[in-house]
Amino acid sequence: MNRFGERFSITTFGESHGKAIGCVLDGVPAGLVIDEAYIQSELDRRKPGQNEFATARKEEDKVEILSGTFEGLSTGTPITLVIYNTDQKSGDYSNVKDIFRPGHADFTYFHKYGLRDYRGGGRSSARETAARVAGGAIAKLMLAQLGISVQSGISAIHGIEAQALDFNYPKNSLIYALDKNVEEAQKAAILDAKNGHDSVGGVATIKISNLPIGLGQGLYYKLDAVLAEAMMGINAVKAVEIGEGIHSSALLASQNNDPITPKGFKTNHAGGILGGMSNGDDIVLRIHFKPTPSIFIDQESVNTDNESVHVSLKGRHDPCVAVRGSIVCESMAALVIADMVLLNMGSTMNGIKNYYT
Amino acid sequence: MNRFGERFSITTFGESHGKAIGCVLDGVPAGLVIDEAYIQSELDRRKPGQNEFATARKEEDKVEILSGTFEGLSTGTPITLVIYNTDQKSGDYSNVKDIFRPGHADFTYFHKYGLRDYRGGGRSSARETAARVAGGAIAKLMLAQLGISVQSGISAIHGIEAQALDFNYPKNSLIYALDKNVEEAQKAAILDAKNGHDSVGGVATIKISNLPIGLGQGLYYKLDAVLAEAMMGINAVKAVEIGEGIHSSALLASQNNDPITPKGFKTNHAGGILGGMSNGDDIVLRIHFKPTPSIFIDQESVNTDNESVHVSLKGRHDPCVAVRGSIVCESMAALVIADMVLLNMGSTMNGIKNYYT
Amino acid sequence: MNRFGERFSITTFGESHGKAIGCVLDGVPAGLVIDEAYIQSELDRRKPGQNEFATARKEEDKVEILSGTFEGLSTGTPITLVIYNTDQKSGDYSNVKDIFRPGHADFTYFHKYGLRDYRGGGRSSARETAARVAGGAIAKLMLAQLGISVQSGISAIHGIEAQALDFNYPKNSLIYALDKNVEEAQKAAILDAKNGHDSVGGVATIKISNLPIGLGQGLYYKLDAVLAEAMMGINAVKAVEIGEGIHSSALLASQNNDPITPKGFKTNHAGGILGGMSNGDDIVLRIHFKPTPSIFIDQESVNTDNESVHVSLKGRHDPCVAVRGSIVCESMAALVIADMVLLNMGSTMNGIKNYYT
Amino acid sequence: MNRFGERFSITTFGESHGKAIGCVLDGVPAGLVIDEAYIQSELDRRKPGQNEFATARKEEDKVEILSGTFEGLSTGTPITLVIYNTDQKSGDYSNVKDIFRPGHADFTYFHKYGLRDYRGGGRSSARETAARVAGGAIAKLMLAQLGISVQSGISAIHGIEAQALDFNYPKNSLIYALDKNVEEAQKAAILDAKNGHDSVGGVATIKISNLPIGLGQGLYYKLDAVLAEAMMGINAVKAVEIGEGIHSSALLASQNNDPITPKGFKTNHAGGILGGMSNGDDIVLRIHFKPTPSIFIDQESVNTDNESVHVSLKGRHDPCVAVRGSIVCESMAALVIADMVLLNMGSTMNGIKNYYT
Repeated sequence: MNRFGERFSITTFGESHGKAIGCVLDGVPAGLVIDEAYIQSELDRRKPGQNEFATARKEEDKVEILSGTFEGLSTGTPITLVIYNTDQKSGDYSNVKDIFRPGHADFTYFHKYGLRDYRGGGRSSARETAARVAGGAIAKLMLAQLGISVQSGISAIHGIEAQALDFNYPKNSLIYALDKNVEEAQKAAILDAKNGHDSVGGVATIKISNLPIGLGQGLYYKLDAVLAEAMMGINAVKAVEIGEGIHSSALLASQNNDPITPKGFKTNHAGGILGGMSNGDDIVLRIHFKPTPSIFIDQESVNTDNESVHVSLKGRHDPCVAVRGSIVCESMAALVIADMVLLNMGSTMNGIKNYYT
Repeated sequence: MNRFGERFSITTFGESHGKAIGCVLDGVPAGLVIDEAYIQSELDRRKPGQNEFATARKEEDKVEILSGTFEGLSTGTPITLVIYNTDQKSGDYSNVKDIFRPGHADFTYFHKYGLRDYRGGGRSSARETAARVAGGAIAKLMLAQLGISVQSGISAIHGIEAQALDFNYPKNSLIYALDKNVEEAQKAAILDAKNGHDSVGGVATIKISNLPIGLGQGLYYKLDAVLAEAMMGINAVKAVEIGEGIHSSALLASQNNDPITPKGFKTNHAGGILGGMSNGDDIVLRIHFKPTPSIFIDQESVNTDNESVHVSLKGRHDPCVAVRGSIVCESMAALVIADMVLLNMGSTMNGIKNYYT
Repeated sequence: MNRFGERFSITTFGESHGKAIGCVLDGVPAGLVIDEAYIQSELDRRKPGQNEFATARKEEDKVEILSGTFEGLSTGTPITLVIYNTDQKSGDYSNVKDIFRPGHADFTYFHKYGLRDYRGGGRSSARETAARVAGGAIAKLMLAQLGISVQSGISAIHGIEAQALDFNYPKNSLIYALDKNVEEAQKAAILDAKNGHDSVGGVATIKISNLPIGLGQGLYYKLDAVLAEAMMGINAVKAVEIGEGIHSSALLASQNNDPITPKGFKTNHAGGILGGMSNGDDIVLRIHFKPTPSIFIDQESVNTDNESVHVSLKGRHDPCVAVRGSIVCESMAALVIADMVLLNMGSTMNGIKNYYT
Repeated sequence: MNRFGERFSITTFGESHGKAIGCVLDGVPAGLVIDEAYIQSELDRRKPGQNEFATARKEEDKVEILSGTFEGLSTGTPITLVIYNTDQKSGDYSNVKDIFRPGHADFTYFHKYGLRDYRGGGRSSARETAARVAGGAIAKLMLAQLGISVQSGISAIHGIEAQALDFNYPKNSLIYALDKNVEEAQKAAILDAKNGHDSVGGVATIKISNLPIGLGQGLYYKLDAVLAEAMMGINAVKAVEIGEGIHSSALLASQNNDPITPKGFKTNHAGGILGGMSNGDDIVLRIHFKPTPSIFIDQESVNTDNESVHVSLKGRHDPCVAVRGSIVCESMAALVIADMVLLNMGSTMNGIKNYYT
């Protein structure tokens, strides 16, 4: 199952070292200006090989539109975006052909499918997330027409936490930091890990603003539930928090409830969601990424014959997958909201009558 | 959208103060012994009104099977479970008819739908979760046939954390505590909140054992993603962690990767999931519940005319929703695993050929 | 899989001789007046035991609403409709416990599931279609608000074809005939079959009027495709035609194309659908029902041990399942259109902007 | 919605005169030999420009695999097939830019989406069906492993009916005729229509053999219902018959029921399906295609300003769309069966236990 979303859906395809990766977007409304330069600019934010904080793999990540547009506009038909792989060094992986890299999907894919494309993790590679970013860019184009914005940044690295979140700052930061004051310490943590042939975890924070009230569907396609699914499904994510998140379990209701006033909510412990629906306030998510499992330190593992081996990885890897991962979170959030915007239409008889008459 | 699951699916219905709540299970394999007493016993674990740590609302929560079984066995057709509401005191809610209770879904439902069943929260009431528990019981019956177990308990209340987890202990504890040594402190925290007309948050931990390797589908129906969706969709949940969870973002890979040996994984930071699939180890989830929003302390809010009001709730509420919520988490986890068990069949050509020949 | 529809969906449950049959409707917009008397009146049209042209089984088919409404209006939550079985004579079926009735689902259910509820066909009984009619009634209530009507009637029995279709006439006819001039001949054909301990086939025609242009989604949820699925899925249906139907394969395009004028289409060979979407003209469907397989004539069959047996059915059966089946076709058509109405919202960026601003 | 199938699913994309058409197959089991030459050979059967009975448009229809295979085997990940468009003569369509061709989707697409890619019908072009054939080829590869075959041919053209069906003959016939004895008359009917600047309708017949008993899911994903959806969704199809089809409505049950013997069914009026499930006998479908709406005769229509116009089409079109359409029917049938094969796994508790132990 490689599709996500009900009405505004994305289906991705492709492997790290195959011919191409890409996606098909189904449900994009007709008449949306498909700004190709914008899509490319979003991909460029996630693109590897740009500095010392990311893998040295240099992918151009040039997006090509194969279908679904006409004279610059979406037509209501499926939009296919393709990114051809260019800098595959499959040779790097011949030494892990028969062994399972700790912390990776090698072990589970092999046991589920009986075979696997071992080159760069194949389908389970984070490279696939470029397709999510390409698709998310189109979602963001649609949301922008409604005034909805989705922003992201890095709030923590190796436990070094941002004290204040400035969502305008990440574009100025090589590690997409949200807090200029801890940025250097966070960078140092990444480089320390890298220099130790290790890697380090981090936290992305997402902010979604200017939502209509009431996005989220019934009790099993709740906005928070689907956002959690979207985030937890991103490579290396191990925890998702909404609003007060993990702290809420240590609070009293008198501390955690958000008083309501005629001008809106006084506080936002809820993180913009009540009863599984947007309440009009900013949605705030914290997404925890584990450290990139690919490290150059000797590790214990087994091979496909279940014999004990030692793994000494080579190749090119991100010392902190959270950094570029934050862009993926932003893209997935945009895809969720676009879907919820479409699903919400038709919630009331009055809305339907207005639409058709 | 009130359905959950692809192949083993549950659709729930019903409101807190309507005639009944219930669910339809679709995709239950034929030939499963449907042990009605077991389903009832699961409901009894979630049942309100049993002690001072839960709401005083006394619901019998007697389950009735309307369809899908014949001579005690599932037939492969939809199984409908109904629980009639008996102890509705709708009068308790007349005072909140036109106002929005802070921390509740009142505000969002009203704005989305233009009207709402205000009695006890209507559809958004945690009462609906009884239907999840009934459905989850059937999932657990199926999983038991494969040797898979799903267990739950309370690991933290108001920040008071279990130091060791004993999944055999909760059945002896009125608050389903996992650690006998902190149980009394956790109980005290709940009663303190209750006595202060307040409520308190907590954390449930779920353990799923004896899974086959490879459950989880593709990149958008990953096991971790769907578990996160399932948990975050439960009333009052604000964060979900898998394995090392939030701590993983503060670790180095050399600390977080699980070495593999011919006898299995040496550690379980992954929480039993790699690349979105079960790796054969125990799956461990931590689910953070906010404090029950219904409290008897004066709160600021607005009414349906957006005028400032003060809310003084009455009624019967859980002082800590996490306690009974842990049973719901367990049930949802069972539903997810049952679905994944079915979806996983047909992953390989060899498996298909063996099945049909 | 016992659910139908994407956004306005119905899930049915129940067996012929179980406690109850019913359905859960998910996606019904809030604020629709749920006219219980109307739903009952629709069920009464399908109800058995009313005259010599239908089975003598006397089911009251009294509908009860279990959830989803408040003060007479839909609330946007799942609407559950239940019909309790009252006139089950399970004893009638003990003689077919171990044998497969020709033309019935007995053989396939037994081989698929390894067991079956043999009483009255269990789940595969046409009794389940009462749940479709109940759900279809709510779809019709919604469509009526948009001016859309769905009508049905019998066009042919045993090859005796209506020469003109009058959709106002069926309510006056015990066999829901569309053409008064052939009604008596059609009735005679049914009674002849009945008197010969046999049964006979027939054709229902459906007309859907006043549709907006453009209902139907993409290339795989086309309006014609989904209508075909809906109709072919009804018990005993063996062919579905749209517009010119089977005749279209014998025509030239110059005969079959519908010229377009500023006032609309000159002819309607297309049956109201072009490119899988409604074109604004009436949708016309012809649905062919085979004769009820239950007959009182001796038939060859096998038992569950695959031994040769002779079947002599007893029980109460419709001599022409098409008659009451026409109501089911109408209901399924209404469910399809209601779904398409919701799905169509959000097809254009302009439509979305208007909805949200 | 451009996806078809639940577990073995196809999502197609692309327009007649865009860069490419193609599909993503999701759910293909791992370990299937992906025979690229076979896929190409299937496309070649549908390919235009091969003789006087098809459009002169010469598309190479060369398939390229973008993802999902490794060393010649499927890996369990999405398989993407792309066919680049090469012989687009968009200029041919400039004269229909602002007018609606009778019998085509122009009218409905324009009204639904507010704009359309008018070149060659854009997305609604039958060219998209090449993607279905490519996907269907992979489904056929999988089915072949289970011994299941899907065959097709032309049974009728312009009312000239085959008297006997020989499924080995179509490969020898330029019009894929099933009956050598009427082949020449059928060919003449096509050429007559073509010479008259007209086109003609026809009927394809599909035969699916060697199915396991019990394929088909519940009451709303019945095998017959989904086959009907698959067939009716193909361009130009206006009627679908299963087994006795339209004749069943004129028969008595004593004529239509299939007696069962220890060696199987004596007759096959049912067309291989009982109660929505395969009964082990051959599935036989008749699919009625209307004449290609594109003809070179003057026709009445309107333009996008709803003004009366006369249409004189140019371009290259099939004089009988049923001929190449039969290959598409075969492909869609294969996709349906592959899906049902996967869905059927897990129908019984015994089957599940055997699979996992």
